[in-house]
Amino acid sequence: MTLGPEIDGGRLLARLDAFAAIGATPAGGVNRPALGAEDRAARALLAGLGAARGFSVFQDAAANLFLRRAGADNDRPPFLIGSHLDSQPTGGRFDGALGTLAALEVLETLEDHGIVTAGPVELVAWTNEEGSRFSPGAFGSQVYAAGAFPSGWQDTVDGNGIRLADELAATFAALPEAVERPLGRPVTGYIELHIEQGPLLEREGALIGVVEGIQGTRWLEVTIEGQVAHAGTTPLADRRDAMAAAAAVIARLQATVMPADADARLTVGRLILAPGAVNVIPGEVTFSIDLRHPSGDEIDRLEAEVGALAAEIAASGGCRLSVRRNMDVAPARFDERLVGIVEGVARRRGFPSRRMFSGAFHDALFMARLGPAAMIFVPCRGGLSHNEAEFVEPHQVIAGAQVLCDAVLEAMPVVETRQMP
Amino acid sequence: MTLGPEIDGGRLLARLDAFAAIGATPAGGVNRPALGAEDRAARALLAGLGAARGFSVFQDAAANLFLRRAGADNDRPPFLIGSHLDSQPTGGRFDGALGTLAALEVLETLEDHGIVTAGPVELVAWTNEEGSRFSPGAFGSQVYAAGAFPSGWQDTVDGNGIRLADELAATFAALPEAVERPLGRPVTGYIELHIEQGPLLEREGALIGVVEGIQGTRWLEVTIEGQVAHAGTTPLADRRDAMAAAAAVIARLQATVMPADADARLTVGRLILAPGAVNVIPGEVTFSIDLRHPSGDEIDRLEAEVGALAAEIAASGGCRLSVRRNMDVAPARFDERLVGIVEGVARRRGFPSRRMFSGAFHDALFMARLGPAAMIFVPCRGGLSHNEAEFVEPHQVIAGAQVLCDAVLEAMPVVETRQMP
Repeated sequence: MTLGPEIDGGRLLARLDAFAAIGATPAGGVNRPALGAEDRAARALLAGLGAARGFSVFQDAAANLFLRRAGADNDRPPFLIGSHLDSQPTGGRFDGALGTLAALEVLETLEDHGIVTAGPVELVAWTNEEGSRFSPGAFGSQVYAAGAFPSGWQDTVDGNGIRLADELAATFAALPEAVERPLGRPVTGYIELHIEQGPLLEREGALIGVVEGIQGTRWLEVTIEGQVAHAGTTPLADRRDAMAAAAAVIARLQATVMPADADARLTVGRLILAPGAVNVIPGEVTFSIDLRHPSGDEIDRLEAEVGALAAEIAASGGCRLSVRRNMDVAPARFDERLVGIVEGVARRRGFPSRRMFSGAFHDALFMARLGPAAMIFVPCRGGLSHNEAEFVEPHQVIAGAQVLCDAVLEAMPVVETRQMP
Repeated sequence: MTLGPEIDGGRLLARLDAFAAIGATPAGGVNRPALGAEDRAARALLAGLGAARGFSVFQDAAANLFLRRAGADNDRPPFLIGSHLDSQPTGGRFDGALGTLAALEVLETLEDHGIVTAGPVELVAWTNEEGSRFSPGAFGSQVYAAGAFPSGWQDTVDGNGIRLADELAATFAALPEAVERPLGRPVTGYIELHIEQGPLLEREGALIGVVEGIQGTRWLEVTIEGQVAHAGTTPLADRRDAMAAAAAVIARLQATVMPADADARLTVGRLILAPGAVNVIPGEVTFSIDLRHPSGDEIDRLEAEVGALAAEIAASGGCRLSVRRNMDVAPARFDERLVGIVEGVARRRGFPSRRMFSGAFHDALFMARLGPAAMIFVPCRGGLSHNEAEFVEPHQVIAGAQVLCDAVLEAMPVVETRQMP
């Protein structure tokens, strides 16, 4: 059993510090809105670091930024690794930056060791993954995987009315050395290192999450119509209380769906009732259900279960029910060969790992539609993310990047190792 | 068994029509905000009708309007009957007006029959019962029963910034013939006829509600604090979901409190959650509980039960609970002698009746603090009130007024019947 080249952990940690300084917040986080000045500064730094090592710099029409390290056969589609550089308004230092800078570390490690891979290996920094400035999130990878902008997306504006198209243009202008390339080029594969953004790895003492896929997500909007009536004069038998029915529905769903299936997620994050007076029985309640599961069939089954259960409870309370589907993102199941590679290299390094699904969206969700994809998770303290206190231990950072490097070299084999001067 | 004089049902129905024309809405209801132009017009009409029959017209400092019909011994405190003339913005023709005009009908019936009562009988139209223009409602009867304005009440403004004190002054100016009288004069008793504003009488085919008292009302504000977390990445075991806990609390309370006690009322009319995003587990939920019962002890017990149950459920969901009491109005129990009189006269008239508690506030709640009080309910169609479609059948109107007349004559006995000229 031979292990691949060791990455330079100190260099990677220093890079993380350097990028965390761009848009740094007083509380130790970062604020790097997609395509804004700080994001452009981070892109420029990344492009400069790549160019200094001889990597080619490209941008596509969505401002996805690529650093290309050539291989033996450069007609072969590249193996992509990376993540994103934009952040939430009060985001952490690791979300996105870790995967992007670990990818740079991989390219530099290959360079350091004079490794010639069978085909090119490319770093990608996707545009507007967070979606907190421009909606939708994972904009760059969606456009890349689709191969085109859906009509109208370029006219998207941020909260200040600034057009996405204008910010894309400004981003291109700020990096004139990047060569334009088309959207949707084929890839040999894609691996993204990311923080877990959840508590499982930390709790179980695992260092590496071998991500098998990304949960599907379906958003339902449930409306329960009852009858407005006086809180004092209306006896139980005459009530058609929309809030009582909604509470019964939510309580039952919470008591059944997740306890019955550890892979299921059900969240009621919004609830609005009307008319909303202390002494008036609510006539209408609308609430959201965020339903997630690694299996699309299971999401279908859960949606049907939610609908039937809610209809039964609403009817028994004399209320009418309607359920609308507001969003539906199919689960992604990652390429079993790439997943196996990640699992194998973690094992060879002696890193405790576990297979898992991602509960959050990532650019890999869309890249899995284009070609083989996989993800590597590392723990984050307390499962905390989208938070300035987001933290990953240095040894966890280094372990994640090492697994990424090893996995790339297994997926895109070494054909030659040149003697370095 | 002798029955008292018959009221003039046709006259009463005509009066209801005449008053419904003041502030009439296109949909058949009335809009007569307290102390506004329409309310003043209704007061002027009432005062004129009373003066035309020789009744003395008084107003106190809260603009409560009185029509006094003298009795044999006029040092004796008056027996008061009445209700209010103000309405909700889209109110019905009967809420308040029925009790006020039935009281006028009683005075006129006594006059028609040359009846001399032992002491004076007075009609009262209380100021701002609804509370929809100036807060709080039942303003006039509260001030009357307390004998004084609480400090600051006169500076109350309506939704347009118009001061209550200014509208009181304008109301006095519009009725200069009314003699000023002090607040809080003693009374022999008070009986108020009102529509039920609930469905019980109609459902049971009863014509007369013999009201034993008014439920106590306590308003609680429950806050459940959990932990904001990602809807996708957070497994059940790591959730401290404030909305799941709130739903469980509300569902349990709805399933236990009212089913266990037909006299209890529990309503969750307001609920606010934070942060309120579809894909974020709520960190905080605040909701109201409107708790009512005829027994103050039972309200205490229910509040304790609610608190214990909510604390247990919140704790089992990893959440923290706080409960604040926002309002507390003690139940009123009406005078058993007056209640018995109402029940007896209804029986003698052959009107099906039932004893009941009022779920809504009425001026009688405050008058019960000053002296013996009781109420008479008549059905309203579908239990509907505070609604332009509010409706009482003519025979129900007449029955209610007849019971009021009979009850007054039993509470304030006839000492002489003069031959009418």
